[in-house]
Amino acid sequence: MMYPGKSPYTMLSVEDCVEMVASQVKGALGQEEVPLGQALGRILAQDAIAEVPIPAFPASIMDGFAVRSAEGRGAFLCPAAATAGERRRPLEEGHVRYITTGAPLPEGADAVVKVEDTVQSVRSDGLEVQIPASKPGANIRQVGSDTAQGERLLTKGCRLGAAELGILAALGMRRVQVYQEPKVAVLSTGDELVDVDGDDLDETRGQIRDCNRPLLCAMVKELGATPLDLGLVKDDLAIVRSALSHAFNSADVVITSGGVSRGSKDYIKEVLTELGEVHFGEMCMKPGKPSTFATVGPRRRLFFGLPGNPVSCFVTFKLLAAPAIEKLRGRPLDCPTYARVDAMLASAVQMDPDRPEYHRARARWESGGIVAESTGFQRSSRIASIAEANCLLEIPSGSGVIPQGQVVKALLLPGEGLRPEPEGFPRKARKAEPAPKVDRPQEPKTGLLVLGDAEGLRNLRPQLLERRPKEANAAKEVVERWCRQDADACDLVVVLANLGLGSADAEVLAALRSCLDKSCANLEELLLRRQLQQSPLAMLHQSVAGVRSQTLVVTVSTFCGDALTDILALLPQALSSVRSDAP
Amino acid sequence: MMYPGKSPYTMLSVEDCVEMVASQVKGALGQEEVPLGQALGRILAQDAIAEVPIPAFPASIMDGFAVRSAEGRGAFLCPAAATAGERRRPLEEGHVRYITTGAPLPEGADAVVKVEDTVQSVRSDGLEVQIPASKPGANIRQVGSDTAQGERLLTKGCRLGAAELGILAALGMRRVQVYQEPKVAVLSTGDELVDVDGDDLDETRGQIRDCNRPLLCAMVKELGATPLDLGLVKDDLAIVRSALSHAFNSADVVITSGGVSRGSKDYIKEVLTELGEVHFGEMCMKPGKPSTFATVGPRRRLFFGLPGNPVSCFVTFKLLAAPAIEKLRGRPLDCPTYARVDAMLASAVQMDPDRPEYHRARARWESGGIVAESTGFQRSSRIASIAEANCLLEIPSGSGVIPQGQVVKALLLPGEGLRPEPEGFPRKARKAEPAPKVDRPQEPKTGLLVLGDAEGLRNLRPQLLERRPKEANAAKEVVERWCRQDADACDLVVVLANLGLGSADAEVLAALRSCLDKSCANLEELLLRRQLQQSPLAMLHQSVAGVRSQTLVVTVSTFCGDALTDILALLPQALSSVRSDAP
Repeated sequence: MMYPGKSPYTMLSVEDCVEMVASQVKGALGQEEVPLGQALGRILAQDAIAEVPIPAFPASIMDGFAVRSAEGRGAFLCPAAATAGERRRPLEEGHVRYITTGAPLPEGADAVVKVEDTVQSVRSDGLEVQIPASKPGANIRQVGSDTAQGERLLTKGCRLGAAELGILAALGMRRVQVYQEPKVAVLSTGDELVDVDGDDLDETRGQIRDCNRPLLCAMVKELGATPLDLGLVKDDLAIVRSALSHAFNSADVVITSGGVSRGSKDYIKEVLTELGEVHFGEMCMKPGKPSTFATVGPRRRLFFGLPGNPVSCFVTFKLLAAPAIEKLRGRPLDCPTYARVDAMLASAVQMDPDRPEYHRARARWESGGIVAESTGFQRSSRIASIAEANCLLEIPSGSGVIPQGQVVKALLLPGEGLRPEPEGFPRKARKAEPAPKVDRPQEPKTGLLVLGDAEGLRNLRPQLLERRPKEANAAKEVVERWCRQDADACDLVVVLANLGLGSADAEVLAALRSCLDKSCANLEELLLRRQLQQSPLAMLHQSVAGVRSQTLVVTVSTFCGDALTDILALLPQALSSVRSDAP
Repeated sequence: MMYPGKSPYTMLSVEDCVEMVASQVKGALGQEEVPLGQALGRILAQDAIAEVPIPAFPASIMDGFAVRSAEGRGAFLCPAAATAGERRRPLEEGHVRYITTGAPLPEGADAVVKVEDTVQSVRSDGLEVQIPASKPGANIRQVGSDTAQGERLLTKGCRLGAAELGILAALGMRRVQVYQEPKVAVLSTGDELVDVDGDDLDETRGQIRDCNRPLLCAMVKELGATPLDLGLVKDDLAIVRSALSHAFNSADVVITSGGVSRGSKDYIKEVLTELGEVHFGEMCMKPGKPSTFATVGPRRRLFFGLPGNPVSCFVTFKLLAAPAIEKLRGRPLDCPTYARVDAMLASAVQMDPDRPEYHRARARWESGGIVAESTGFQRSSRIASIAEANCLLEIPSGSGVIPQGQVVKALLLPGEGLRPEPEGFPRKARKAEPAPKVDRPQEPKTGLLVLGDAEGLRNLRPQLLERRPKEANAAKEVVERWCRQDADACDLVVVLANLGLGSADAEVLAALRSCLDKSCANLEELLLRRQLQQSPLAMLHQSVAGVRSQTLVVTVSTFCGDALTDILALLPQALSSVRSDAP
């Protein structure tokens, strides 16, 4: 047997794939009636119509006195109270009546005068109230003036959030007609996978945690649909076939991860070709190229074969599966799933030469527009790139980078919405703290390399952190990698190590120096001086500071103690001075 | 007893109230450990640190052949397969080994060559594979290159969405330390209230549905906290006192609605003064002026006394209670709750002379910015004004209107986020359908007044709808109200009625004509002609068409049938022509 190379599937554009999926989704599943208290998040399957007008009676807008406006100003007797909910009696001529907000206007009255505009004095038979002149209808909500009888307050297909439940309650609806939730079966394929609740990993066998099922099940839940966790499936043709047949018997949608690329044990596409119709098997995007979509059986149940890398899983679920599940849940067919907005890049983004990329980022409102901060290195195996991502940037294919400040299209993922920092509401002591501007110097992207068993640097919050033995090659490899000029390059590399006068340490120092395009003698001296202030032992240690490519590299020793705080505060300035210095 | 007038509480600004609440919230409640599967939506109470590097072994990035790169190009024997998960054996010299994506690199190998770059031929002892030259490290993910050992992937205080659960699973975390959810007791006060699951309303007694509890409980749930529905409370000092004492014994936060204004039976503020400390009792905003905030007992439990109108309840919950509950749930104290963005008004908005207003609106992305569409008439009793609202516009106090196209500040409410129409993803047949522009003529705001028992007009989707008897005064009142030039004015008023030659009908016609500043004879004739095409009976009926203020008013008869569609299509043009005609 020879090993398969190129995929036999035609690679379709994302747009074509998305349209293909949409064309196979015919609309909502069935309907059901649920009690109002269970309808949160569901999709309404009926229009919500006011069967009676609101208010159903003329009601007071304020606490005050109901009057006959034709009787004009003067002193009137107020014999008794009609608070909200009390049985109404007609208002006698020459009388006024106390009335609370929302209470029905007594028959005969045609206006309400607010308490503050009156003067009250106590009489034996009630109150004498000095009433100013008023106009008919003053401070009264007329019948149907909030909601006319027959008015439609909510439309079929609308999502029932808290506000909408409040509206249904106001209309007196105890039960509500909603669409059924689709059942979505989730399976992971791959011999190397171990359940998160299962045994410890045997890394010598290449085992890894299956994080795709927790991820996919939670994404299904976030949509409001019902996940069906069908577990792990081994890479065996017969097992895959039987697992999928079972899945299609119990669910409206089946989602797998893994087993769709060209590996010798990738059986998903093969089984789907037997069970139904594969509509596409390769999509021109990054990440998620081998994504597969099929429909199965006479009821044309939907199948999404997502790639095995969790990041690819996340992105392709959002692009392909989520819009389809939304429609099955009852959202209108022509209603898009994500707002597609313009976002300014907070840092440069590397393009892929061949495929458009859906770059994970965190979008926030800042200085009058949306600013998107990349989640960092976008390799599809790096799951950290989906952490707290609330948007996908549409990065076109091309060569080079899209520079910082450029505006790109971004799909806003629902959930938390735009991150409320830095201009959000409420902010403690907002006045004292002016919102930072987008054009302020960026926080330097920092990598911390710890050599040996050094400890310290509690004030540094590096985006990258690695611990290595205090050894020349290890140090060199990390520094070179972190300085490589791609989207993931650090602005600053801090090496925490005690590098003394021994020959092994000298080798490490030499290796670090060999990484640098130029060294910064002044910065080295500054580092030494600050460390000496802290401890005379620092004189036995050596520091390196310099620039490789666009990255500033410095070593610090654990003798720094609190002086590190000062040194760290200086580093961003050092960085910008070093860069402005560059030819 | 005299009735109370002005509130004795100092009216504070929204900013001061919000800051007062923030100053009383000291941070999260306790912590608890939950299984990963139950952590969706919770707030992380620990940093998530990678205890082992990812990958834990050098892994292949693609399906291909593991090689010793130093052996260079040539023909190699591939004796057996090492798919992901298989026990690794060292790679013999002179051999290559098939390897799938993610599988551990066999000892001795230092690069992977992809299948497509090789030529395979079958031999008795395996495959002979023509391998091109490769570089050390090619197509290999080094240990820790996705996630370094000790790297922090998620920070304490972060909300656990699906992506974050995937990350925790990848780190092998079966259980996760999260903050406890606050318990939020919800009560409604008011003798006039009837439970939505309770008896039918007796409107003669001024009864209304209690929609505040369903609304508040659902808003608490949407935040992820636990609502405790403590039911309806009668307007009686002793009952209110005992209900609140009970509530504070069982919940971390207590929220009431109603009973906070100056009505004779509003006991909430009085009881809170006994039980704890009232921090404010009047807030300078619309809606929600009487909002009350207090803390109770040594543990300083939070109390929010929200107004009784459901709309005020909604807005004040979002502004005051939600940020506090978020902090109790474990969100960082300095993290704002809502993004505060710039939004362009899709239509003019009336200002209140005295108080800033939090105007409910629907925000969407359109033509490079956020456009906000008012939910219409903002009276606090009109619950329709919260339907599908996803933002609160900060409308300052002032005189007159803020014109269409003006940019105002808006608080984006989490949940669905920006409405994805009209530029969202995915959109069916996106290419054929260019996104409408914000400067296109607005859909006319239409009111439909149905006089008598007329039926028809299924193609009209009016924002306002009222049914009245076919009677002159009723007709006049509605038309005048809908034409009043405030933010709620209609562009178009359609009166559906069969107005024949009888004297009562003539009175209605005269009343309608008397509403008009000028009549439009041509439009009247057009309406007649179209109706005649449908039925000769139309000649027995009369039509009115004209302009009052900036509103176009037309009558149509039920004889129109399908011709109505055409007439309705003409009306927006008629409207703009009539307006351009104006002096």
